[in-house]
This record gives sequence, structure tokens and C-alpha cells, in this order.
Amino acid sequence: MFCWNEETKQAQQAVLTRPAVTASEDIAVRCKAILADVKANGDSALIAMAKKFDNRETPRLVVPVNEINQAEQALSTELKYAIDTAYANVKRFHQAQRPKDIKLSTQPGVLCELKYQAIEAVGIYVPGGSAPLPSSVIMQGVLAQLSGAATVVLATPVQGDASINPAILYAAKLCGITTIIESGGAGAIAAMAYGTESVPKVNKIFGPGNSFVTMAKQLVAQTIPGMAIDMPAGPSEVLVIADERANPEFIAADLLSQAEHGADSQVILLSNCERIIARTEQALTTQLANLSRRDTATKALANSTLILVDSITQAFTVSAEYGPEHLILQLADANPYLDQVKNAGSVFVGDYTPESAGDYASGTNHVLPTYGYSATYSSLNLLDFFRTYTVQTISKNGLRELSKAILPLAAAEGLDAHANAVSIRLEAINNER
Amino acid sequence: MFCWNEETKQAQQAVLTRPAVTASEDIAVRCKAILADVKANGDSALIAMAKKFDNRETPRLVVPVNEINQAEQALSTELKYAIDTAYANVKRFHQAQRPKDIKLSTQPGVLCELKYQAIEAVGIYVPGGSAPLPSSVIMQGVLAQLSGAATVVLATPVQGDASINPAILYAAKLCGITTIIESGGAGAIAAMAYGTESVPKVNKIFGPGNSFVTMAKQLVAQTIPGMAIDMPAGPSEVLVIADERANPEFIAADLLSQAEHGADSQVILLSNCERIIARTEQALTTQLANLSRRDTATKALANSTLILVDSITQAFTVSAEYGPEHLILQLADANPYLDQVKNAGSVFVGDYTPESAGDYASGTNHVLPTYGYSATYSSLNLLDFFRTYTVQTISKNGLRELSKAILPLAAAEGLDAHANAVSIRLEAINNER
Repeated sequence: MFCWNEETKQAQQAVLTRPAVTASEDIAVRCKAILADVKANGDSALIAMAKKFDNRETPRLVVPVNEINQAEQALSTELKYAIDTAYANVKRFHQAQRPKDIKLSTQPGVLCELKYQAIEAVGIYVPGGSAPLPSSVIMQGVLAQLSGAATVVLATPVQGDASINPAILYAAKLCGITTIIESGGAGAIAAMAYGTESVPKVNKIFGPGNSFVTMAKQLVAQTIPGMAIDMPAGPSEVLVIADERANPEFIAADLLSQAEHGADSQVILLSNCERIIARTEQALTTQLANLSRRDTATKALANSTLILVDSITQAFTVSAEYGPEHLILQLADANPYLDQVKNAGSVFVGDYTPESAGDYASGTNHVLPTYGYSATYSSLNLLDFFRTYTVQTISKNGLRELSKAILPLAAAEGLDAHANAVSIRLEAINNER
Repeated sequence: MFCWNEETKQAQQAVLTRPAVTASEDIAVRCKAILADVKANGDSALIAMAKKFDNRETPRLVVPVNEINQAEQALSTELKYAIDTAYANVKRFHQAQRPKDIKLSTQPGVLCELKYQAIEAVGIYVPGGSAPLPSSVIMQGVLAQLSGAATVVLATPVQGDASINPAILYAAKLCGITTIIESGGAGAIAAMAYGTESVPKVNKIFGPGNSFVTMAKQLVAQTIPGMAIDMPAGPSEVLVIADERANPEFIAADLLSQAEHGADSQVILLSNCERIIARTEQALTTQLANLSRRDTATKALANSTLILVDSITQAFTVSAEYGPEHLILQLADANPYLDQVKNAGSVFVGDYTPESAGDYASGTNHVLPTYGYSATYSSLNLLDFFRTYTVQTISKNGLRELSKAILPLAAAEGLDAHANAVSIRLEAINNER
């Protein structure tokens, strides 16, 4: 237990400092080689990588549409219901985020518009690993579908000659995705960024991944003009604020559901009650013993701290300084504090709102800024699949009046040609009379 | 003149290819040294740089507020009116972009919210150079003001012991900016990113600049967790689409108003009429002779092309492929084509809507994605000064029902602790009965 008020400012800062994440120079070099290979050799580079890294023999890169359509037959009723419900809730919440164009005259004859345009081609990466991640398909695929993007590509690795898990395929089908690429890692990112014979080139790449995926996303965003990525990646985090009447078993379960994500996950508890902290520590030990991923969770707990604060108000100050990806409020009444929430990716209010609800099915997005980026970056939302541009239409009279603002500014900034583009039009208007 | 349909696909691509912009390794090395210096030595590093690079003797870094407040006394009536009008129009257009929170139940007992939070501390960089750029203050400062950011810092270089131009100070005053730092280049970016004794640390840095400023912005965004920048930088561009009844003098004036920005600016004309192209070429020569910045404009014209297309529809296809920062439509009736606009930063419709209107005063923002980034990035808008986060509040009954979606997904993804965080609560609910 770390007693906030008894520690120095330095110790306070240290306890909130995240473990440094520095990609090795080696990963950058290897990613650059993979990018160059895929750019030059397209599909054949992807097939060679599938053989080498994923132990595959089949040269297949694209999942046939009938496999996507038939996947649901392999799902249990319960899992199908779960995917359907998660899809519906995520769709409902993100549909409400649909942007509206703006149109107004700033002064007579000067019409200004802000318009939204769906990003034309988007790529979604879904990591492989020990288990399939259908939730990752839903959290990104629904938004692509709602945006109306013309091209949506999903890429995910396959280990050996296994096919892609039907839960992934069914989630993709619900999202209307018909282009699924059996390819992973930096190669898959390169394929979507440059395009290959089988993989359409996209404009923006979404999705989490290992250090190769993260590095490849950064490299394509830095080197290909017009290419964008979703947000900076980092290890997952949760911060729980709990008062004296919170349930330590619930707190421990929430901390562990974050800790099992990865050894680099960080979990923090802030409470104004020493007893709650002590009991949470006990509950962590008990619950940990029964987890299949207890080794991972144990490592993550080593980066993590239970902190005693003076007051719940102080807890919100500390949380704002840390800027957690997930913020769980197990408080008798969180309402008076909600306005004090700052720099959080997603907030879970009350004893019966575990993080796993948002991870899977409540409707909010589970792609969230982490590693301190919640000070500036948004949780993934529908606007991430759109861009805005402006349109202006000015009448002759509008320009005559507006010239009184343009000409002195152009003169002050020493830009003759800017002034001339207006003056030459004013002359034409005067000559018409 | 380049006849689109008579050229190979390769030649077509070549004519739309932007000149490569690669920052030299030398600039990266020098920027890193400046960043480290400012991080370690704060104000004294900035003062040393002001003496070295800006030829200054005075150690002053911060403009006293009374200087900001009194600046308008030095302005001509015309310039004050121009700044007031530009400020009012930009404010009117961006105020309409104010975001609204969203709150809805995705299913009974599952309340989801999307909330907007102003980015707390923002930095605005305004480049120095041969003339002051009050428009750059307005285009960024109004948005910071409308967002309600708690801290707004403006940094701009001063050459020698001259004070900052009163047009800059007055524009800043209108935008409610009280912290103005007399510092430029990578040092100013570092000061806002790390904070110094005089300069508040910010979370997001906006604004154009030279290759040092651009490199410093990239470096702080890559290395400081939570730090963000506005958008990738690149040379300025305009693409004009003109039909057979367009005015070649207007076209030439618009091309030149872009060309005078810098030697690396790119200007393109697409027309379906050979005569218009020939006359525009003549008008360019005539108008160029009278410009104070004709050397710059001449260099820019060397990167630029007048292209004959088959039809106006083809012009829009070519424009979408190029993705211009500014798109000017000098068409008899642009309306039927407006839905074909893709990948443009800002669009100027009709013969009497020159780019300089949007650069200064129509109300739209002049900070726009360039260098192909208009496929994915937005024109600067009010949301760039906000972030979104989500909040969910789930009732006991809500969680019981939602668990049917969460538990099978957690099982499918092999995440026990995620399931446990739900099951442990369901048990508690059942035990209450």
C-alpha cells in the first residue's frame, strides 16, 4: 500500500510512471525490410511470410465469401447470441454519433459549409494469439460499416493451416465485411498500406497488435503521404476509485480482468479506506489462484499499486494526473464526482459496471487511448472513420464586402498575389456596371 | 500543357506526384539537441537560442499583458476592421461546430454516454518570417478560445529586439490569449512540450513552421506520452477546375496566390478547354511581373502543371486522385459536381470565391491537410481542440441481461478474469434475494 500524502512529490510521480515502452531498433529494421518486401513483391511476399512465420503451407490469402457466410453454423447458440447482442449495442451507440453537415452564412453573401466524408478505404487488423478476438472485429467493423466506407479490409493471422475462427468470420459478416485477408504482423499492415494483387490499398489502418504491428503502423503513417492510423498504441491500464463501502471482491476481479491482458498491463487502485485496500489485496491472492492466465496477471500486478488517498476528491486529482485508459468508479454515489473526471478513455460507474461490460457488449468502444494519451486522444468513435472538409461560396456582393477584411490582412502579411486575386475580381465587378 | 488522355498512366501519375519532402538527418539531430537543451535548462536555453538564432539581446521571453492589451492603438482603422471581421466570421463558423454529448440506453439498464472534454492546455505556434501572420493567430486562437481550454500558449519568434507585431498581439487579444512567448523554432516547440519556468507545458501543439518546427513537433509527439500535434505538415497546394467560360485572369490570380506562398508550393489547373489553358498561361506571365514575391512564385510554377482534360467529370476524378489542399471550382454551375468532390481540404465555389477569402476571412479554417493527407485528415475544426470519452452505468438487472453477451465472448477469447468480474457480481445479486 502506498500512502499518497505521506510520500514526496517525486515518489508520487514515480508510482504513476508507466513502464517505458521502447521499440527496439531491431524491430524497426526488420519491419522496414518487411514493408519493402511487400511493397516490391505483393502477394508472393505475404505467402512466403505465412510459410515462415505462421507455419502455413497453403498459399491462400483471401477467405472465400461463402466461408464467411457459413461461419455462423459452427457457433453455439450462446456465442451467436452474444455476438449478435454486442454487435447491436455497439451499433446503437455509434449510430448516434453520426455527424451532421453544417451550413451557414458568416456574413451576407458568404456561405460556409462543413462537410463530412467517409474515409474511402479502411483496414482493420485483428491480432491472432492464443484465442480468437471477435470483439475486436465488432469494435472496429461496426464503425466502418456505419461510415459507409467503400472498401473495408480485415486482416488477421492464421496459425498453421487452421482456418480463421468462425466467431471472427461471423462478426465480420454482421459488419458487412467481405474482404478478409489471412495474414498477420507487419506483412499484413504493409499489404493494406501499399495494396497487393489480393489486398486492396487502404487510406487508414485501425487495430491493435504486437510490437511489429505497432511499428509497421507507425512506419507506414510516417512514410506514405495520406496514410493514417487510429491512435498511438500502448499497454492496457485500469484505475479503480473505491470508497469505504465498495466490495473488495469486485475491485479485485476488475483489477485482475485488466491484469490478465498482458504482463505489461498496469492496474491501480485509489481508495480513501485502508480496510478496503487490505481486503482487496487478500481477494487478489484468492482470485488469482483460479485464473488460467495467472502467470500473466501476476507479472502485471508487479507494475501495479494500491494507493491510499486522503479523500475521493484527491483520488480524482491523482486519476487525472495519471490519465487511465479505463476508470472504474465503485462509489456509493459517483454523480457528484463525474464532472471531475479528466483524461480517462472510458468510465465505468457503480458497483455493477465491470470493465468487461465495455470490453464486450455495453455499446461503448473498447479501443481507447492508453499510456497517457487520454489527455489528448479520443476513445475510438464514428468520426475516426470520417474526415471533414469545408466549402465556401461567395457572391459578388459578398466578396465586395469581404474584401474589406481580406485586403488589409493580405497587405499586412505582404502577400500581393493574395490581394490581387480579390482586386482583379472587384475590378471585373465594377466594369460590369 | 499536359493532355491527360494522350498520356500514359505512368505519365499521369508522374504529373500528380508531389516533390519529395524529406527532412535531412541533420535537422533531426539538431532538433534532438535543442529538445534536450530546453528540457534540461528551460528558460535559459530559450534565451541563449534567442541570442544565437534571432540576434536578440533582451532576455525577455513573455510579452507583458498590458502590451497585448494596448497593441490595437498601433493599428490602422482598416487593419483593425479586417482583423475584427476575420475574427467574427471564423468564430461564427467554428461556434456552429460545438459538439454535443450523447446519452442513450443500448438495452434496459445499460446507459452509455459519449462526452466531449476540451484539451486542457494547448500551444499555438505562429511562424515569423518577412511579415507578421495575424491570420495564423485567428485560425488557431479562435478555436482554442471556443473550446474553453484552461491554458493557451502562443509562441512566435522575434527578430532582433523588435517587439511582436501589434497585428499579432491584437489578434491574440481578441482570442483571449494572455500567454505569448517570444521564442521560435524547435526551441519554442520544446518549451511548450516540456514546460519551462516561463512557459506552461501543453498537451497539444498546433501551427505551421519551417522544417525545424515540423521536425520538433514530430519528435515531441513521438516521444512524450500523451503529447499530440495538429496534423502532418507539407507544402501548400491549389488545384483549379475551370470550364470554357471561366475567366483566365481569375484563374491565373488564384494560381499565383498559392504560388507566392513558397517555392515548394504546387499549383494545378484542370480544364476541358484548350483556349482557357492558353490564356491562363498568358495571364500568369503578365500578372507575375507585378508581384513582389515573383521569384518565389516563379519557382513554385516550375512544380506546376496546366492539364487539359476530356470533361469536367474527368477533372473531378483527377482531383480526387491528387487530393488537393485547396480546390477552386470556376464552373458555370458547380452544383451538379459538388457530390463528386473527394479528398479536398477546402473548396472554393464559383468565380467570386478566391482562395484568399478562405485564407483570411470567410470563416472557414485555413489550416488544411496537404501533401495527400486530405484523403484521411480533416481541415482544422473545433473538434481538434476536444477529445471524447465514454461513460457507462449499468444496473443490476442490466448486468444480468448483458452477462448473456459478455460471458460467452469472454469464454471464446479465453479471458477468465473478464468473465469472473461479471460472475462474481451475478453471485452477489443472487445472494441478495
